[in-house]
Amino acid sequence: MATFHLRTDTTHATWNRDQRPAIHVSPGDVVTLDILDSSDGQVHPDSTVDTVANLDFGRVNPVTGPVFVDGAQPGDALVITVMAVDVADWGWTANIPGFGLLSDAFPEPHLRISQITAGYAQMLPGIRVPICPFIGTIGLAPEIPGDHPLVPPTVQGGNMDVRHVTAHSRLWLPVAVPGALLSVGDTHAAQGDGEVAGTAIETSGQVTLKIDVKKKLALKSPELETDPRSHRQGPAWVTTGIGPDLFRAARQAVEHMIERLARELRLAPDDAYLLLSAAGDLKISEIVDAPNWVVSMHLPTHLWD
Amino acid sequence: MATFHLRTDTTHATWNRDQRPAIHVSPGDVVTLDILDSSDGQVHPDSTVDTVANLDFGRVNPVTGPVFVDGAQPGDALVITVMAVDVADWGWTANIPGFGLLSDAFPEPHLRISQITAGYAQMLPGIRVPICPFIGTIGLAPEIPGDHPLVPPTVQGGNMDVRHVTAHSRLWLPVAVPGALLSVGDTHAAQGDGEVAGTAIETSGQVTLKIDVKKKLALKSPELETDPRSHRQGPAWVTTGIGPDLFRAARQAVEHMIERLARELRLAPDDAYLLLSAAGDLKISEIVDAPNWVVSMHLPTHLWD
Repeated sequence: MATFHLRTDTTHATWNRDQRPAIHVSPGDVVTLDILDSSDGQVHPDSTVDTVANLDFGRVNPVTGPVFVDGAQPGDALVITVMAVDVADWGWTANIPGFGLLSDAFPEPHLRISQITAGYAQMLPGIRVPICPFIGTIGLAPEIPGDHPLVPPTVQGGNMDVRHVTAHSRLWLPVAVPGALLSVGDTHAAQGDGEVAGTAIETSGQVTLKIDVKKKLALKSPELETDPRSHRQGPAWVTTGIGPDLFRAARQAVEHMIERLARELRLAPDDAYLLLSAAGDLKISEIVDAPNWVVSMHLPTHLWD
Repeated sequence: MATFHLRTDTTHATWNRDQRPAIHVSPGDVVTLDILDSSDGQVHPDSTVDTVANLDFGRVNPVTGPVFVDGAQPGDALVITVMAVDVADWGWTANIPGFGLLSDAFPEPHLRISQITAGYAQMLPGIRVPICPFIGTIGLAPEIPGDHPLVPPTVQGGNMDVRHVTAHSRLWLPVAVPGALLSVGDTHAAQGDGEVAGTAIETSGQVTLKIDVKKKLALKSPELETDPRSHRQGPAWVTTGIGPDLFRAARQAVEHMIERLARELRLAPDDAYLLLSAAGDLKISEIVDAPNWVVSMHLPTHLWD
């Protein structure tokens, strides 16, 4: 097992299967990546709403990478164990005009800077948000050549903004190109399911990942196992549906969990369907990274463990 | 304060503002209601899949009531404190052909009977679901005259299947007719957010409610405060969006929470919007009671308490 460290001089601004790898690793290796905040440093602790009004969108959501994983091939899954997610001691949350679920109702820019101390972000007077650092953007290069934007997530992952990709979670991503080409960005100190205004508590950070390959596991969409030590939610399996229609994404998330239960527990599909009705939770993970939303199906593993 | 007990000889099979009240109560009174299961007793502990295949839909989802609340007028909110939800020692979960999120993929009827003991429903071999009893259907008569079906929820509540309407929660429903005309049905032993196959762990039960009126609180949709003693989720405020489009329902749930935060905490709308982005969770509460789905916004109250 080797360890690597990627710094923020190896970021890129689009998904592209021809992006030159920043490093090559082997299955079992550990990579630490330094992560820029989603504004690429445009927002500072002393920024005002003018910074938001004048954001250069060409620099938004930079990712660190890509990491070429030896032996990963299309039709395999990259298995990523999140060993650590550390974030800065401050973060920002903004309403960016034209972006967010209620962009028509909130046309004016707005900005709140949070100081982060002792596990809380002091976001508004008298209101503090417990931090739960996670990775907003983690994905693989797409099959189709050319530049693809970083903001919308796809079945290769990317800017999924699934707030359960925390330390001690494990993520499966479908590989579309030789070497997988993993990139990571957009660390968040905290976020609600939905990320309704379009930004979380946005921070720079550092993540450490252990990277493995599961051969011939042709997933249709990312899957996750949450932090088994989480005392609030308990360990859960998560499947996703990703696309521009929430109803269809919800159907996909359910279908993918039925497939996972067949694969892992040999559960009959009709029994799995009833189990999800009685004990599985549909969450809207993000509804702002146009044009693709993410719906997640969460199933607690204590049902059978 | 008076107490009342409504038995299952006072059920009805449609929402109708002209339904004759089963009882009249005053604000502050407590009512215990006996509740039939959603099949109206058609499913038994020894039922087979044939029972599901031959269900009489004309009898589905009976509600007990209505309760006429003195002094409740259109433009008020009925405030319902759920004091207790008790369920039977068995329940059923079925795939009913033509009903459910994946009805096209699962055309055949399927049935699982769960015995409930020591807080768990034994649903499948080796798989047990912790029970969390709640009220699937709780609503008020609609403004528009005539018979309205019981399965789809509306802004007056009804078959919302919001699994957080448990004992020790508190519900606000917008009153549309004089006396409010509250009816209750469809007790569930457990359910996931979404109720994806269309049924939960369906049971008969008994619920006890304390009923109050908040004058001149013109809510657009039901609101909830969850059980403050819940150790898993913690206390939360819940707002809803109800309708045939999930995206629009999500927008409404967010708008309603922004209005609630302005009303209760005097939070500026743009600050409330950012707070929901950082700390509020969008859940799909039900996606099966066609044509109306329920999306909920959950915000933990420990952020400011």
